Amino acid sequence: MDIKVGFMGLGSMGLPMAQNILKGGFPLSVYNRTKEKASSIIEQGAKWASTPAALAAQCDVIISMVSNDAALNEIVEGPSGILSSSKKLSIHISMSTVSPELSDTLEKKHKENGIAYLSAPVTGRPERAQAGTLWIFLAGDSHAKKTATPILEEMSTKIFDLGEKPSQASLFKLCNNFMILGLIETMSEAATMLEKGGISTEKAAEVWGNSLFDAPIFHTYFPILCKRSYKEGGFALNLGLKDMRLLQHCADQAQVPMPLLSELQTKLLASMNLGREKYDWSAIALLTRELAGLS
Amino acid sequence: MDIKVGFMGLGSMGLPMAQNILKGGFPLSVYNRTKEKASSIIEQGAKWASTPAALAAQCDVIISMVSNDAALNEIVEGPSGILSSSKKLSIHISMSTVSPELSDTLEKKHKENGIAYLSAPVTGRPERAQAGTLWIFLAGDSHAKKTATPILEEMSTKIFDLGEKPSQASLFKLCNNFMILGLIETMSEAATMLEKGGISTEKAAEVWGNSLFDAPIFHTYFPILCKRSYKEGGFALNLGLKDMRLLQHCADQAQVPMPLLSELQTKLLASMNLGREKYDWSAIALLTRELAGLS
Amino acid sequence: MDIKVGFMGLGSMGLPMAQNILKGGFPLSVYNRTKEKASSIIEQGAKWASTPAALAAQCDVIISMVSNDAALNEIVEGPSGILSSSKKLSIHISMSTVSPELSDTLEKKHKENGIAYLSAPVTGRPERAQAGTLWIFLAGDSHAKKTATPILEEMSTKIFDLGEKPSQASLFKLCNNFMILGLIETMSEAATMLEKGGISTEKAAEVWGNSLFDAPIFHTYFPILCKRSYKEGGFALNLGLKDMRLLQHCADQAQVPMPLLSELQTKLLASMNLGREKYDWSAIALLTRELAGLS
Amino acid sequence: MDIKVGFMGLGSMGLPMAQNILKGGFPLSVYNRTKEKASSIIEQGAKWASTPAALAAQCDVIISMVSNDAALNEIVEGPSGILSSSKKLSIHISMSTVSPELSDTLEKKHKENGIAYLSAPVTGRPERAQAGTLWIFLAGDSHAKKTATPILEEMSTKIFDLGEKPSQASLFKLCNNFMILGLIETMSEAATMLEKGGISTEKAAEVWGNSLFDAPIFHTYFPILCKRSYKEGGFALNLGLKDMRLLQHCADQAQVPMPLLSELQTKLLASMNLGREKYDWSAIALLTRELAGLS
Repeated sequence: MDIKVGFMGLGSMGLPMAQNILKGGFPLSVYNRTKEKASSIIEQGAKWASTPAALAAQCDVIISMVSNDAALNEIVEGPSGILSSSKKLSIHISMSTVSPELSDTLEKKHKENGIAYLSAPVTGRPERAQAGTLWIFLAGDSHAKKTATPILEEMSTKIFDLGEKPSQASLFKLCNNFMILGLIETMSEAATMLEKGGISTEKAAEVWGNSLFDAPIFHTYFPILCKRSYKEGGFALNLGLKDMRLLQHCADQAQVPMPLLSELQTKLLASMNLGREKYDWSAIALLTRELAGLS
Repeated sequence: MDIKVGFMGLGSMGLPMAQNILKGGFPLSVYNRTKEKASSIIEQGAKWASTPAALAAQCDVIISMVSNDAALNEIVEGPSGILSSSKKLSIHISMSTVSPELSDTLEKKHKENGIAYLSAPVTGRPERAQAGTLWIFLAGDSHAKKTATPILEEMSTKIFDLGEKPSQASLFKLCNNFMILGLIETMSEAATMLEKGGISTEKAAEVWGNSLFDAPIFHTYFPILCKRSYKEGGFALNLGLKDMRLLQHCADQAQVPMPLLSELQTKLLASMNLGREKYDWSAIALLTRELAGLS
Repeated sequence: MDIKVGFMGLGSMGLPMAQNILKGGFPLSVYNRTKEKASSIIEQGAKWASTPAALAAQCDVIISMVSNDAALNEIVEGPSGILSSSKKLSIHISMSTVSPELSDTLEKKHKENGIAYLSAPVTGRPERAQAGTLWIFLAGDSHAKKTATPILEEMSTKIFDLGEKPSQASLFKLCNNFMILGLIETMSEAATMLEKGGISTEKAAEVWGNSLFDAPIFHTYFPILCKRSYKEGGFALNLGLKDMRLLQHCADQAQVPMPLLSELQTKLLASMNLGREKYDWSAIALLTRELAGLS
Repeated sequence: MDIKVGFMGLGSMGLPMAQNILKGGFPLSVYNRTKEKASSIIEQGAKWASTPAALAAQCDVIISMVSNDAALNEIVEGPSGILSSSKKLSIHISMSTVSPELSDTLEKKHKENGIAYLSAPVTGRPERAQAGTLWIFLAGDSHAKKTATPILEEMSTKIFDLGEKPSQASLFKLCNNFMILGLIETMSEAATMLEKGGISTEKAAEVWGNSLFDAPIFHTYFPILCKRSYKEGGFALNLGLKDMRLLQHCADQAQVPMPLLSELQTKLLASMNLGREKYDWSAIALLTRELAGLS
């Protein structure tokens, strides 16, 4: 097990993911825009690299987990990006949620530089990143996927193969987030109606969680709706809006009318204007309540 | 076990439900608007009653499973309705999906006649009615619920107690159907987008069914979306529209804005106008496809 | 000019309408639920009638202008309603905004009693009722319309003939109000966007009022949007909601999907829940602003 | 009157606009991507320029009227774009409907090159371009606007001054088109409901055109709705969609929820998928009819 692994992007998801790779026994180097966030993992044994290019030079496989298209593009094509590295790495596993368009572009750029580009966005909130129980949507070159799998397994319990085209894993991730947010909207309208009719969200969650809607997604969000703990966001509302806009762009290109997606953006935008950009994205349910006269 | 049970309404749901009661060993009488539909169950040992009043006269507990508010009202308050029966029964278990308003009215009317009125709408399609694996949302007088439970258990695997007010079980059932239809809309937008992006519904169903969306509701509807078998409807689209309108009426009364409910009604109505009233209600997904240019 | 005219319903619209009939020289009797509101017009020469039946008994033509279906039904069919009058009048002109369904029912009931029933809802706010410059949508029996015209002309500058079926004037009125509210929503979204882009509503109103949108409806509502004087309502928001619900009922019956109508109801309902039921109905524009982060 | 005028973009709007300038007595040169479209105006006395740069070199004021952001950008910054011209012109009047973002960018680029950039989008369909009765939304440097006015007056009857920032005229134009399309949607829902209720669109158009909705915009679109002559499009549906998307982008940036704008895009997109991209944009009304079961 001597594949040298590099990890870029030590945020609330990235740091625990990197730590699980380290625990798995892989030699690990890390890079982050601000070095402070790396101090704990360096103590745990990771090496520091001062730029993406430097990281690439000392690794076989690099993983990136950053917050948006611009950040990913910067660490790839920026002045000290991985494509500018003297020594070529073999695989870049991009685990960020980005636009399918960027995935297509980066796949091409990496190929021109002799690097395999895999798209491997994850579903799961920070708790699950820590537990190593994320689920991964994986797409790209078959051979590279084989090499990447043991590393990905340190972070996840399920890896779903979405084919050879990295952009399709990106699209799938965006649709996955749309599905989640669509269900939150559905739950929020139903729960608000029930509360006004005298049935608590707790009761509804208990019934539905033990019948038709006994799925991980409901078990994650019913408790948040019950406690109305929207402020302690695992996934920030403004990032949710970012993802829905990326998906809207795909829907525009593909000419797919998505009325629910429009409604979700309306609620996310209004929530932003109410100063809730750092709340959990499920806070759209709070707006549903307020428009119905509940506090 | 000598509670004499009566059953009214031998449709695609009611008949297998009644048969399961009979199999359970309860002495059973039946009534249906058209007698033909009762022939099989009469052969199996059920007694025939020619009117709801006659049925009431020979039973302790009556169950009704009819298609809408008007039909339920007729068998209760009509000229030969159960309230006109000479001998009083003790419990009426209404398992139809009706308006909370009617439930309130009927609860009062039954009480005035010394009869306990329970609301016990079910979730599950005809296959599950046959298998005796329905789920029941039960509300009403505690003592009556206790008496009713062994009978209900012949038809179901889970009974959820929603309190003392029959109308709350009715409201819960309407919200349950809204949740289902909301998810169908969400799935249909996502699946259409994915298909245009090169990912089949089968693939999406496989991934989601094994991850976030591993719930009975998805396992019921993903296969229909995959096969696009909307014509062989378990639950007719026009009945779905009826339920959404009942819920809209509740939302209007309670002043709850439900934008997704509006969108669902728009799609159901348009589907009606395209001649799909007898398709399964999941056929709103077909309209999503068509508006996106897929056949 | 000796047609004896009766007027029922002396609200903010009805009172000035009745006064204009009186000024026109018609002998006038009046009825109102609370007599106080009639004091000024009685001083001006109108006779008082203590019930609708009494009013009917002393008049040839009766006009009603009340706030909803229930109120209209009461003055027609109630214990001292006009149908219970000893002496039969010849024409009842209903100028209220009510459901087409009620119009159909009342047309039939009046016919059975030998009375012609005309539907004549108006468009115009209280200022125009005072000025006698309302516009009237008239439908019903031709002969009766001819008799009614000189009376209606005292209140209005334009009378539009919508045929023989009273319910069609009712439907037209509901659609007229939908058109107005649809434009308010359109204007409110555009004006909010422009304001955030640095262009004032005053500027937009000036440009549009002198170009494409130079119509009475815009000249009425642009100033309200400019001044944001939503509190001083000519037409209360809760009455607007009532009308949109009546129209929704028609759309449901006729199976017409009206997505904009749904959106309008969502905004009206949310405004109700924010305590704005007595604001002018154009206050939906205030919600548009607030959801965009403007105060 | 010896300002030498250049005109770029001889489409269905541009050609008649250019002809009106020529008729006004201004010396005119023209450029178009395909020369054939220029043949008639060259016969009428205009000079031909083979590139935007060549056109710029022989003119004082250049007007452009092209179909989208990319085309405008090309004639400005492309290899033979006007910024590459040897001799500097003084004013560029951009009359196309483009994004406010591009207007901002181009304003800056022109300024760096010593050229005044005016934004002057028009409202009016080809008939009015021919008649010289367009309305213009003008923004930019005051001095340049003064110079441009006599030229613009050859094409228009009203010029509205929207200030010093060219991008604000662009934004206003997008909102203007949104207003038009919003009204078309409103009219289409009302007209469909009325038709199902037995009142023809002709009747509605007659009543409304003589009352509340007596404005140019309604007099343009009511006849199209009456005749359902959507195929003979003055303004193509795909261009309408382009404009609504540009506006959506502005709304996203400014965080303005615009639910009606979403609905309009849904209908435009679905119409595109039904093969109606070349129909008049009012063809969204056809979809409203079809979803209501009318042909």
